[in-house]
Amino acid sequence: MAQRVTDTFVFKPIGIIHTPFKKIEGIPIQGSLCPEMRGWIEVFQEFADGLQDVDGFSHLILLYVFHRSEGFRLITKPFLEETPRGLFAIRAPKRPNPIGFTVVKLLRREANRLDIAGVDMVDGTPLLDIKPYISAIDAHTDTKDGWISGKMRSDNGKRLSDSRFIE
Amino acid sequence: MAQRVTDTFVFKPIGIIHTPFKKIEGIPIQGSLCPEMRGWIEVFQEFADGLQDVDGFSHLILLYVFHRSEGFRLITKPFLEETPRGLFAIRAPKRPNPIGFTVVKLLRREANRLDIAGVDMVDGTPLLDIKPYISAIDAHTDTKDGWISGKMRSDNGKRLSDSRFIE
Repeated sequence: MAQRVTDTFVFKPIGIIHTPFKKIEGIPIQGSLCPEMRGWIEVFQEFADGLQDVDGFSHLILLYVFHRSEGFRLITKPFLEETPRGLFAIRAPKRPNPIGFTVVKLLRREANRLDIAGVDMVDGTPLLDIKPYISAIDAHTDTKDGWISGKMRSDNGKRLSDSRFIE
Repeated sequence: MAQRVTDTFVFKPIGIIHTPFKKIEGIPIQGSLCPEMRGWIEVFQEFADGLQDVDGFSHLILLYVFHRSEGFRLITKPFLEETPRGLFAIRAPKRPNPIGFTVVKLLRREANRLDIAGVDMVDGTPLLDIKPYISAIDAHTDTKDGWISGKMRSDNGKRLSDSRFIE
């Protein structure tokens, strides 16, 4: 399988995520901790037909590009603590493949526009995919949460990003 | 924002997902419906250091490429029913950006190898990212599940993929 190392895959946005966050600093560290934070998605016209039936779902999975991130460190400090952690054990934007994952609440669809809540990405973020969130498949509650156990406090909604991932 | 339409993003695998499924047909339609189905991840050596602290998590989010899928239809039939649905309201592999999303259970890590359960991808799938699954952020149980409501029956673990997404 070693030949796969040289494979590359090219992706092109299907739309743009618009949010109140013009800068990388000061963004909620996770959207579900700030469920009231609103934004909207502009799905490019050529993909708009694929939005049929999306309205029936209350939550959507967004896959997008951390387009303002460059490079990565395999051991790095997460927002929630000062201890460096392995990159694949944290959700930081600087990754070998800088793909973001956020589950947002769908408030309303109008043609190719989706109004959403629970946003945690910078304004103008390139959207790669929308998938329906299905609780029977996607909600796992019996989990062991590693280093983050006990660190998910109710006031984390006030924890905002800083510049650590843009240096 | 229209200029974004022309942006492209290039991603390169960080590893390979090994599963018992050599063919596209006969794969469980969702890994969490077949939680006992085992596979393993080979993270390429150059990224292995990023696996530190991953062991603490019981569940991992895998983002990968549906590398055997080509093209897409914006309205298409999901595995669970015969009614055509909008592509962004189903989880089919044929998508504008064929990125797969599965939450798997981590059984064991040994160096750059992760033994996992709940796999639903074909053997040799290129892995793009691993993120820790954090129930406080990622588990949404109060959802409205659109067309799929009432279709997630306990026997869905026996529903297997067919050739509809490789034609």
